[in-house]
Parts: sequence; C-alpha cells; structure tokens
Amino acid sequence: MNFRDVMALAKRRGILQAAYEPYGGVAGFFDYGPVGVRLRRKIIELWRQHFVLGFGALEIDSALIGPESLFKASGHLSEFDDLLVECLECNKLYRADLLVEGGGALDRDGIAVALAGKKCESCGGKFDVPRPFNLMFSTNVGAGRGTPSYLRPETAQGIFQAFPWLLRQNRGKLPLAAAQVGRAFRNEIAPRQGPLRLREFTQLELEHFFLPNDEPELPNPLESIEINLVPAKGKKKSTTVGNALSSGIVDSSLVATHLARTQNFLTSLGVAKDKLRFRQHRANEMAHYSSDCWDGEIYTSLGWVEVVGVAHRGDYDLSAHDSSSSKEFRVPLPGTEKEREVWVPNIGKLGKEFKGKAKSILEAIKNVDIEPDISIKANGKTIVLSEEYLSQKTERGSEMVFPYVVEPSFGLDRILYCLLESSWKRDGEREWISLPQETSPYDLLVAPLMTKDRLDEKAQEILQSALDMGVDAYYDEAGSIGRRYARADEIGIFFSMTIDHQTLEDGTVTLRERDSKNQNRLSIEDALDKVRR
Amino acid sequence: MNFRDVMALAKRRGILQAAYEPYGGVAGFFDYGPVGVRLRRKIIELWRQHFVLGFGALEIDSALIGPESLFKASGHLSEFDDLLVECLECNKLYRADLLVEGGGALDRDGIAVALAGKKCESCGGKFDVPRPFNLMFSTNVGAGRGTPSYLRPETAQGIFQAFPWLLRQNRGKLPLAAAQVGRAFRNEIAPRQGPLRLREFTQLELEHFFLPNDEPELPNPLESIEINLVPAKGKKKSTTVGNALSSGIVDSSLVATHLARTQNFLTSLGVAKDKLRFRQHRANEMAHYSSDCWDGEIYTSLGWVEVVGVAHRGDYDLSAHDSSSSKEFRVPLPGTEKEREVWVPNIGKLGKEFKGKAKSILEAIKNVDIEPDISIKANGKTIVLSEEYLSQKTERGSEMVFPYVVEPSFGLDRILYCLLESSWKRDGEREWISLPQETSPYDLLVAPLMTKDRLDEKAQEILQSALDMGVDAYYDEAGSIGRRYARADEIGIFFSMTIDHQTLEDGTVTLRERDSKNQNRLSIEDALDKVRR
Repeated sequence: MNFRDVMALAKRRGILQAAYEPYGGVAGFFDYGPVGVRLRRKIIELWRQHFVLGFGALEIDSALIGPESLFKASGHLSEFDDLLVECLECNKLYRADLLVEGGGALDRDGIAVALAGKKCESCGGKFDVPRPFNLMFSTNVGAGRGTPSYLRPETAQGIFQAFPWLLRQNRGKLPLAAAQVGRAFRNEIAPRQGPLRLREFTQLELEHFFLPNDEPELPNPLESIEINLVPAKGKKKSTTVGNALSSGIVDSSLVATHLARTQNFLTSLGVAKDKLRFRQHRANEMAHYSSDCWDGEIYTSLGWVEVVGVAHRGDYDLSAHDSSSSKEFRVPLPGTEKEREVWVPNIGKLGKEFKGKAKSILEAIKNVDIEPDISIKANGKTIVLSEEYLSQKTERGSEMVFPYVVEPSFGLDRILYCLLESSWKRDGEREWISLPQETSPYDLLVAPLMTKDRLDEKAQEILQSALDMGVDAYYDEAGSIGRRYARADEIGIFFSMTIDHQTLEDGTVTLRERDSKNQNRLSIEDALDKVRR
Repeated sequence: MNFRDVMALAKRRGILQAAYEPYGGVAGFFDYGPVGVRLRRKIIELWRQHFVLGFGALEIDSALIGPESLFKASGHLSEFDDLLVECLECNKLYRADLLVEGGGALDRDGIAVALAGKKCESCGGKFDVPRPFNLMFSTNVGAGRGTPSYLRPETAQGIFQAFPWLLRQNRGKLPLAAAQVGRAFRNEIAPRQGPLRLREFTQLELEHFFLPNDEPELPNPLESIEINLVPAKGKKKSTTVGNALSSGIVDSSLVATHLARTQNFLTSLGVAKDKLRFRQHRANEMAHYSSDCWDGEIYTSLGWVEVVGVAHRGDYDLSAHDSSSSKEFRVPLPGTEKEREVWVPNIGKLGKEFKGKAKSILEAIKNVDIEPDISIKANGKTIVLSEEYLSQKTERGSEMVFPYVVEPSFGLDRILYCLLESSWKRDGEREWISLPQETSPYDLLVAPLMTKDRLDEKAQEILQSALDMGVDAYYDEAGSIGRRYARADEIGIFFSMTIDHQTLEDGTVTLRERDSKNQNRLSIEDALDKVRR
C-alpha cells in the first residue's frame, strides 16, 4: 500500500486525519481518532516494557513550555534551525535544502552556492540569500508582555534540567536511566508526508546516564541479536550486536545495547527484520549535541524512514545546564575521594565583628576558595578577612565529573505510520490490519448473533468479564455477522467472538482469528483465556 | 498535612517539583518525577475505567496548537480572559479580582468600582482602569512571520472540531461519548498554590453528545448513589442522585448521570465521601459556553478545591464550529424524515450546451436551492437556467439539529494534590502514603534479605514474573530490610515481599501490607496472586 492509500484509509478507519480538517487543516498537525489512540497506547506500552520496566528506568513528565534561559543553555536557541530562503519577486518562502538536489548532504555554504543558479518554482524569480530559521515555537509567559519562552523541541531537555532531582531519587547512584513520553514541537518550514514530518509530534525518549569510566557493558542476552548496519564509513553489514561492538563498527557498549533493545522493540511491534536498518550519521548531519548517532530506519513505499535515533550525547547537555544554572550537575567520581585541609569562615567571630553585614560577607564567599587575607567585596565595600575570621577544617572530597548519556529517542507518529503501511492487507473485497495481538487496537470483538432472545444481554455480560480481565474488547451488535467481522478486520481487532443460541444452552462461543479467519467452538472461559494476553 | 508540608514532601519523594528548578523555577509549571508519573497513570487508568471502557466512549488525541479561526469560533479569543490591572506608579500587574474581597462573586464593573478605593500592595500607588487579559498562550506557525495560533485552553475544542469525523466513526449514531486526556494551557496572571493553579495542566475530558429530544436517562444502578449538593439557589442537601433529579435540583438526566459517575470515580481513587461535594455555578461564574455547571469539590487544608466541572454546554460549541467552518455539525433528527420534490441539474443537457463551462455552473449551484429560471453567476457571466436544464426528483430529508453535550472535565493535577494531602500519614518516625492499591504508585516491593547466597537472583526472578503478570513491582536491595520497608512506605508501595533463605528451601516469602504492617508467610504463587489486582 502506498502513502496516499494509507492516509486515506487511516482517515476512514478513525486512525488519524489532518487536524482542524473542518477549518481546512493546518499542515504538520494531526488528530488521532478512536483506533489511532489505541494503536498509540499499544506502542507506548510495549516501549515501556522494553525501555522502562524491568530496566528500572525512572519516569518523568516535565513541562512542555520552557524559559529562554533553558534553551539558550541547551543550544537550541542558536543551533536548532533550518535554512530559509525567500523569493525576491513573489516573497514565497522555501526550505533551502529541499530546493537543491542532494541538499541534505551539503553544508550551508554549499546550499547557498547551489541556490544561486536556481529560480523560484512558483514565479521564476531570483532567490534572496538564505538565512537560518529557528524551529522552536515561541510564546510569552505571564501578564503584560510576559517572558519569552518556547515549546520544547525535544522531551530530552525536560530530563536533563531535572537531572539533579532524578539523581537524588536514585539515591545518587549511576547508571541512571530516565524516560519520558510526551509532545515535542518543531516549526518545520515545509511539513510534508503527513505523520512523517510533523510540527507537533510524540517522542518516546530514554536518557541513560553513566560515569565516563564505568560505561554499562552489553548484556549477554543481547550479544547475539542480529542487526543491519550502515556505518558512516565502510560497507553495509548484517551482523550480531556483539560483533559490531567487538569489531569497532559500533564504538560504545551502551549504544550497542540500545541498538539491540531497539531491534527487539521494533520487531515485537511487527516490523520485519529485513526492513529495519541502523544508519550512522555523517559528521555534517549530526545534531549539535551528538558525538555519535545511529538512526533506526524502516523501509516503506517512501524509502527508508527514520523512526529512532540512538545518540551518544556525551556530557554536552549536563555541562551546558551546569554552567548556565544554579545547580550542580556533576557527580563525585568514585575512587577519587581524598582528604584536604580547607579554610572555612568562623561564623561566630564574623557575627561579633560585622554584625548585620556578616550575612552579606558569607554570601560573597560562598562559592570561593577561601584562604587567609582574602579580599572580598560585600555591600560595595572591600573587606580583607585575616586568619582570625577563618578556621581550618579537614574535608573529604572527590573529583567531580559530568556523567555521559546515551539516548534512544523514538518518534511515535512515524512508528505508527510504518506499522500501518506494512500491516494493511487486501484480498479482493476483504481488507484487514494484520498486526500482532500486542499491537492490535483491540484484542476482541464481542458480537451477539442477533439482538433478541437475550443474546445481547449474554454478550454484554461477556464483554464486562473481558474488560474486567484487562482484555481490550469492542462491542458491536449492528448488521449481519459477516459485516461485523469485516468491520472488525478493518480496524485490526485480533479475535472475534460470536454469541448465539447454543451459547445460552452450553456456554460455548465461536472464536474467530483475524488473519487466518479460522473459527473454533470453545467454552467462554477457554475463549477468554486464549484472548487474554 | 498542610499545603507546604505536602509540597515539600512531594519534592523529596520524587512526586513533583517546580519546573526548571535549576533555573529558579517558572511559576505555574511543574515536573512530575518517577513516583508522580505512576500516580498520574493510576488516576488516568481508573478514569478510563469509569468514563471510557464499558461506556464505549471514543478516544481522541488532538493537536495542542490550534489556529486562530478555531478559537475565534469557540469564543476563547473574545471571552476567555481575566481582569488585569496595572499600578500607575510602579507598573506592577495584578489580577484584579484577587485584590478585592469577594472579587470572585463580583462582575467586572463591580470589581472596577471596588478597585477605585484600593492602592498598590507594593508601592501604594493608584491603579489604572482594569482591562481584560486573554489567557491563551499565542504562537506563530510556519516560516517567516507565520500564522497566529494558540495553545489550546481546554482539550474539549479538539473533540468539538472533530465531531463530524467522530460521528462517522460511530456510524452516525447518537448518543456519542468522546474522551480525551491531554495538556491544556492557560496563561494565568497570578498562578499560586502549586498544582492547584497551573499554566500548564492535564485534563481528563469527556464530551457526551445526544439529541436534544432524546437525552440519555439516568441508569438504574446510579440512582441510589448519595451525593452532597450545594445548589446555586436553595439549601445544601445530601441526597441520592435519583432524588436530586426527580426533585429538580439537578435539571438534566445526563448531568445527574455524570455527577454519579464522578462520585464513583473519585471515591474509588480514595477520596472520602464526606469531603466531596458538588456546587452549582452562579450565573456570573459560568464559563461563556455553559448553560449549567456543577463543580465537584474536595475539602483540603486550603478549603474546597474544584477538581471537576460537570457542565451542560448545550449546542454552543457545535453550532459555533458549524457556522465558522466548512463542515456540517448538525445531525438529522429521527422521526422528521419527509419526502419532498426538488430540482436537480440535468448534467447531460448542461454538458451538451455549455461544454467546458458546465463544471463551473455545477459548482455555482452546489449549495443553492434550485428552481427553474434561477439566475446564477459562473465564470463572471450571469446565466439563467430554464426548466430544460433541470430535472425533478423526490428526495427524502430530515430536519437537521445540533446535538447537545454534557461534559465532565477533570483536572488531573488537582486530583493528585488532593489525594496526596488526604493520604499522607505520619506516626512518629514512620511516614506513608495510604492510598488504595488501585491508586498506589506501585503494587509491590521485591526485596532480597541480602545480596548474597543467590537471594538477589531469586528476587530478580520473582520481580520478572511479577512484571510479566502486570504487577507494578519495584526492586530494592540497598540497606537494611527495615530501611527498605520505610522507603517503600514513603512512596506508597502497597505490598512488600521479602526473599530470604527459607525462600530457597520451600518457596515461601514474607508478604507485608503497607497500612497494617501485617506480615504473612506465603508461597510465592499465593503472594503474587494476592498482589495481582
């Protein structure tokens, strides 16, 4: 099925449609409908199983609007942009790299040079010099003019700024994995391709922090996972994660670990192994915070689509927030603890001598290495603190270092699109979504053969038991049973259960499996047992 | 426990803290930490059980940023504001109604009059005339200057604008309930009281649409639910929902239904019945879209806190979007179907006569009641269509009406605060969160007595079985078992399981219940059975 077919069908089946459709739609925004919301939930649940639970990751749900100081520190204010170019005749705006063949591989000067020979696609006019356009949505917080603020361009910064808090929750221990699911926003110049390039999208992000000298090893059970690799230099290769690491194709054991987990997660969703590859970024396509990055890509009718980036962000983010904020983002490096003699203020003496001014003196020396006869400024006056105002003390301290972080960052909307495209099947009149049960929008259709003779009451009773067992059940009593099976297939319901007169007599039902269309007569209990995951 | 205690403890225990704390915090924004995210999820799960599943509600996840046209139609651009007043001396900005005693009950003129005698709290200066301040956050979508857009002030508009799509998903049938969980944004002038007045918050909204002449009745099992009512006129009253409806205190059977469901939902979370009341809005506090509204309020150390509004929005929203957008938001009224004779274009004749222009003629008469000799404009020319270009046809049509809607709209952050305040217990050194298991952040602590003799391996094995069964389990092997129990209590873990040497011999464990501190020796299977909800 191609992109157009998928999008048309997704709209018809209540999966997704352009947002604000009655108002003509707004490019880059989508609404998820009843079936789409369930698909999203299933993908998130499986992601949680692979990256949060068992794994012991700490979850966080941070604010979507952030202050300018945060994004100044993170580099997004200065670095997070695309090249915008305007036609000098008709003033139409374009994303510059899309006007140039192979623009994605060129640097900015290269794009500017290539554009010099190009003309506006709309009016044939000449182009202005391209300029960077920041991709963050800006807003103002507070009454009156307010304070400049931005919608987060990635959920990751919400984790980084909260690192000191999360570390306390982990009782100071590393490694520490922190996970977040949530919206992120990018004011794309030319959003196209529906859910593949959105202005508002949902990320599933994990930030896995560790001490630079104590990177978590690749766990044994993951070593033998086979993956397809496209390194930035050298040849494509299909190999085990263990080999990729030992042969140096993949540099970091934690990056290798998350490539393996990513492969496990995506194949459990229903992605075919041969349609999944990991492509390493070239130096000029790396985000400003990355030191290495592998994109997980799924093959679709549009070519390879990136659905995840596994990035080694080093200490870029924590050191940025450390130097821009008032908090300590470093951690003590184990094994470097030493005793040293330090001078500390003698608060009693200072109070006696300086009375009310003592407080501002203490404030002034708070972040300073003190020694006798140090001269400081307090309340606009220079004061020299001789030895009598200080005491000596033995302090135990460690070398402080920034943790490193490896980040697998998934785009939920893109995963969902790829799953739809690969799982939508047609056979004559019949159309169905052939996802595994774990990702099917519903586990079970409950359908009374007819709405008389109390068959519907019995069906409602079974529906309730199914829901109580945590089965995602759907009730439908309208139309012929064949029509109801067809509708169930169309929205990917995995099993269908029919309640008929025999059900009232002997407590058995017909259970039909979506993909094979096989039907079996089973007791209600056995049927629900089979349906329950 | 009072507000300050709750907030301090919530921060310490990883539930929530002011967002961007390392940057000094931003008023009105909060981050949820590892325990807070789990609490949120539990509340959402229970809400889904009460308002989505079984109930058959359609879920939607709509865009957070919306175009100006949408919020012009919904009335938020012109109506959704607070009164802002500026000190003429120091230019400090205040929310006007908070400066005046009983300001919440006054209208705008009343507030302006009362302010005339007041002086700035900060400098003693006089106040300017108060002016309305719109509470939506604005942004711009697209390159260059972009298109004016807003962050949604309620998730509800995402449902209303998608109503035609949702109705198709429901195969045209009413009643139709549509549910959404998501962020909403209000640029409060003076956010205070932590999670009780936020600029960014999470709503759990249900929009329950029905035909005006076919309002769903109060279901039998809900009639006997007892609730505390504070009507706008008349006395406080504790009575059954059935009585409240039949005596006319509550006007609408669907409002009554959702008051009952709300009571069931909130008490299942752990809210005490005697701390829950429903207060009807006075005419001057009603939102611009409401025709009736009951606030569900929980009693806390800060007084009564609104956590839900059950509003009758009539056809305000659908008719607003109908007249502002290109889509039909009305539905055919059953029982009004009639046959009538209509004129339709004779496409064959039109094609023969007008050739290429026929298309623009058809376009021009698309939305017009046609009759012979109608004169239309097409391609800038006036054309009169005589009877020979038309045919007569019998059409069946119904009267078209706007559905009404009743909306229970919950504020997740406020519910969470109220639950924390009422469930945090202290007894000497001991401190615990005494929520019911359904809302406890974790079901189970899995703790090996020590990390040697393979006790930790056994514990990890049990942890994995627990997680596979869907039990929310937490692993902790650090410190004495007493200390681990204490930590589990502090974050509200419902059960604790200890694995010791006897476990290796006979497969039994100690299971401790948080609130009673009772301990039992059980087989692993029995223990997990007990823990599994």
